[in-house]
Amino acid sequence: MKETNTHTITEVILKLEEEALERWENGDPDGYLELYAEDIVYFDPFFDEKLEGLDTMKAYYETIRGRIHADRYQIIQPVVQVSGTMAVLTYNLCSVSGEEVYRWNCTEVYRQGPSMKWKIIHSHWSFVKPGENR
Amino acid sequence: MKETNTHTITEVILKLEEEALERWENGDPDGYLELYAEDIVYFDPFFDEKLEGLDTMKAYYETIRGRIHADRYQIIQPVVQVSGTMAVLTYNLCSVSGEEVYRWNCTEVYRQGPSMKWKIIHSHWSFVKPGENR
Repeated sequence: MKETNTHTITEVILKLEEEALERWENGDPDGYLELYAEDIVYFDPFFDEKLEGLDTMKAYYETIRGRIHADRYQIIQPVVQVSGTMAVLTYNLCSVSGEEVYRWNCTEVYRQGPSMKWKIIHSHWSFVKPGENR
Repeated sequence: MKETNTHTITEVILKLEEEALERWENGDPDGYLELYAEDIVYFDPFFDEKLEGLDTMKAYYETIRGRIHADRYQIIQPVVQVSGTMAVLTYNLCSVSGEEVYRWNCTEVYRQGPSMKWKIIHSHWSFVKPGENR
């Protein structure tokens, strides 16, 4: 039973991420903003420190709305680790836009709230081998 | 009561991390290896993809044992998000070795097992602003 449950949660988490990423890669950050919890903690390679809170994320993503476009992208070897009300999704992402190839390490920590909805409480994006990549 | 519990877990997690990091910054990876769960998933900037499993981490860390030394380091603004049997620790780390300054984004996901021990099931290390940093 536990195995079935973990299997189902894995499918749910992957679907949520795929849907948000599909919108993201077409310039629409709202998929992720709808998934982020109020207490989201966020890392990417463009800031000196982590970002904290949904309002901070909304302000950041408004600055890049419509400016991201991938011709194609691939989620590579996703893993979901489930324990109780949390699920940790990790994967590599390869995203191609024109001549540019972006290779990412990605962590998303999902938490299931009282309404049973899964929300992202932590997101960490980093470049694969940044010395070679950028 | 819940708040007190969350407060206590935060202290426990921070202490575990500080102890492992203190050993790490003096060339000893065993602090982290003792904390890693069998199903650890790991990102750092030096690999094309994530590393998976405790045996993989042991093999990797043997290659750098005794080779890391920080003159001083600082954990910056740690945050712990607790939900049930999981706790997500995020912080920035500034580590100084001679003339070199390393600035990191760090994620550690801890899971409490049946024995009540907290183990790290996911670790993600990345450089702060790698284009400027390296």
